[in-house]
Amino acid sequence: MDLLSIDSLSDGQVATILDRAIELHTRSARTIGGLEGKIVFNLFYENSTRTAMSFATAAHRLGAAVVALSVEHSSVKKGETLEDTARTLNAMRPDCLVIRHRENGAAAEVALISDTPVINAGDGTNEHPTQALLDAATIRHRIGRIEGLKVAICGDIRHSRVARSNAKLLPRLGAEVRLAGPRELMPDAIPQISVDEAIEGADVVMMLRVQRERLEAELGDAPGEYLDLYGLTSERLARAAPNAVVMHPGPMNRGVEIDSMVADDPQRSLIALQVEMGVAVRMACLEMLVGGPA
Amino acid sequence: MDLLSIDSLSDGQVATILDRAIELHTRSARTIGGLEGKIVFNLFYENSTRTAMSFATAAHRLGAAVVALSVEHSSVKKGETLEDTARTLNAMRPDCLVIRHRENGAAAEVALISDTPVINAGDGTNEHPTQALLDAATIRHRIGRIEGLKVAICGDIRHSRVARSNAKLLPRLGAEVRLAGPRELMPDAIPQISVDEAIEGADVVMMLRVQRERLEAELGDAPGEYLDLYGLTSERLARAAPNAVVMHPGPMNRGVEIDSMVADDPQRSLIALQVEMGVAVRMACLEMLVGGPA
Amino acid sequence: MDLLSIDSLSDGQVATILDRAIELHTRSARTIGGLEGKIVFNLFYENSTRTAMSFATAAHRLGAAVVALSVEHSSVKKGETLEDTARTLNAMRPDCLVIRHRENGAAAEVALISDTPVINAGDGTNEHPTQALLDAATIRHRIGRIEGLKVAICGDIRHSRVARSNAKLLPRLGAEVRLAGPRELMPDAIPQISVDEAIEGADVVMMLRVQRERLEAELGDAPGEYLDLYGLTSERLARAAPNAVVMHPGPMNRGVEIDSMVADDPQRSLIALQVEMGVAVRMACLEMLVGGPA
Repeated sequence: MDLLSIDSLSDGQVATILDRAIELHTRSARTIGGLEGKIVFNLFYENSTRTAMSFATAAHRLGAAVVALSVEHSSVKKGETLEDTARTLNAMRPDCLVIRHRENGAAAEVALISDTPVINAGDGTNEHPTQALLDAATIRHRIGRIEGLKVAICGDIRHSRVARSNAKLLPRLGAEVRLAGPRELMPDAIPQISVDEAIEGADVVMMLRVQRERLEAELGDAPGEYLDLYGLTSERLARAAPNAVVMHPGPMNRGVEIDSMVADDPQRSLIALQVEMGVAVRMACLEMLVGGPA
Repeated sequence: MDLLSIDSLSDGQVATILDRAIELHTRSARTIGGLEGKIVFNLFYENSTRTAMSFATAAHRLGAAVVALSVEHSSVKKGETLEDTARTLNAMRPDCLVIRHRENGAAAEVALISDTPVINAGDGTNEHPTQALLDAATIRHRIGRIEGLKVAICGDIRHSRVARSNAKLLPRLGAEVRLAGPRELMPDAIPQISVDEAIEGADVVMMLRVQRERLEAELGDAPGEYLDLYGLTSERLARAAPNAVVMHPGPMNRGVEIDSMVADDPQRSLIALQVEMGVAVRMACLEMLVGGPA
Repeated sequence: MDLLSIDSLSDGQVATILDRAIELHTRSARTIGGLEGKIVFNLFYENSTRTAMSFATAAHRLGAAVVALSVEHSSVKKGETLEDTARTLNAMRPDCLVIRHRENGAAAEVALISDTPVINAGDGTNEHPTQALLDAATIRHRIGRIEGLKVAICGDIRHSRVARSNAKLLPRLGAEVRLAGPRELMPDAIPQISVDEAIEGADVVMMLRVQRERLEAELGDAPGEYLDLYGLTSERLARAAPNAVVMHPGPMNRGVEIDSMVADDPQRSLIALQVEMGVAVRMACLEMLVGGPA
């Protein structure tokens, strides 16, 4: 079994992962074992602090060993194809392959070749399923349910694998998802609504990182302009439901897509909880895919 | 005891490593332990996917911990001599030092200083003994013997530590080794034969990677020209013995030194088996050098 | 409890760490366990061979797992603030955070946010407390005491976190510390004495690395000039006490701040012993901060 997309998971598997993650989180993320003697390959062809360390931490909490490959060490520079790299890694017989890659479909390409479970830790602008799972677990842990909630996801929807995975997962769990952002950063197929409209009455407001390079190239941004037009300020958050919570997959551009007042609001910001739940969700996924007491 | 060169090993030690590797490979490369509490330093001063990960996987399969140093983190940039780095690392008292370095003799230089076993994971154009050992284990596993086989090694012989270590090991095991490649890429001391002559009647055809930079600088290559003149195509492979097998240490330049038809031939290509055997051979070497049930 | 500065430690804690380090060193730095199931985050925002590997080795010797983040993988490049990175890492609930950073106060900034113990592995030109502790343990192990010793620390005092931490620690342990170096590399507040004066009658001579860039930019150095004027030569060492020992935190610029004759003197150079003691001191610090049989 691979975890390449939210579509890889049945409803029962989603429920199992969310239940188990919330249980593991409650147990305070101690080392629990279960995967002793297993080896997880952590392949990051894009820089990442949080996701790479989160997977490594999850693996260690389960007693597994981690062998990390970062882009600097890779044969990418020597011109080997991803398929050949996948064949090579597979032949080393790891117990799980976690891969982040800049190309859409990279994880699926690796999985076609690999005998071992593959987890997509983000492929280009396509999907980032464990992020969506941790977002769902965070919401359920905090609010108690996902069914019936209104979730606004705002920002660079066009290039966001986080948005894409959440837009698949959250509706399956009964939420209404509203996507909004600058016209230039919205997929053509999605009807354009304003960020204000998306946030109106929302129970959850999830802000996405906007790449500074895109900000300059596509939006001709003046400092603070993005925040005024599309970012989450206290004023804009006032449009949401009274106890609406705020999420962000990180890393944040403070003062761009989110104001610090909102990001640091101890009552409403779930940003640190998302990271905590990230380790728990990845533990649950590794248990399910690699074996263990799941 | 160090493993710096094929010359570091007695015939008995070679036999022990090959026997043990084939046994470990048959057991499907599960974690077997034996080196719990040991620490292996994995020092890669050149980029490497397969070798660095293969050694790390081997160490973990034996229950050892791995501390990896990659070139980006090294004091190389601060101008420390390799000798001083070796003294420093030795003083941390690891249980084994695995080193890849761009300079010939680097592993030997480190071993002179080090109290702990040193394994040469490739030094410049000199040697790569665990690659030759895994190649020998692969051949023996597949064909059942090495004695009496004709092995053609083709490509950039001049700069290949893989060729050099194999040219030492395989004749000791009774094989006839034939080296061939473009004149510009052959050592002066070796009588020039053509690739076709080398492959004629060979039981094993081992193709070497040609550096793209060398291709352009020294050969003035037009696309596909290297393959036509020196690469392994189905036509050229037809000159070999009827059941000849194909090997490549990777990473491959498809369409340059090897045609994909040949590289992917499930009957004849041992390329994935080489990688599998790589982990097993490194486990056997670590057992022998660091201790354990060898 | 954090270890951000020598000031973080009570006299009793210093004594405990030194005693334990010397005991661990005597036991030959084998894996002793005590921190099984713990996870140490090793965050190096500056290149480092010795300190990063020393902490990793220490953690493994105690049975802990290590998750390493190097600068290349960091969200630093994405413009995240150090505070936000600290919040993220803290939310992953590691058992200890070891951090090296180019900015003064970085470790303290992280510690303010972190629920887990933070160890400063060097912050800008501020402090490097485990280096001072290992220097003290080395001196005590070799000479038997620190009380009453004269310690000359020579070189780029202005920019040296090693000097700064030692200048705090060694006087607390009863030593007299003399700081000397080129006028351009001395803090303004310290009365200027010559390197010769500092070394006169010293029991310990600790030489500091001078950055080659500074050498050229601020000193207009001709090759060998720095050694003649400020470096440790046999002639200059003759001014010290008869059995004076020589130390250097590494990596060394041979022929710049220290002559090879002195650096390699088996009777007087403690440079390798410093590295050995480095692992032992970091084990003792991890035991104290993270738990275990300390």
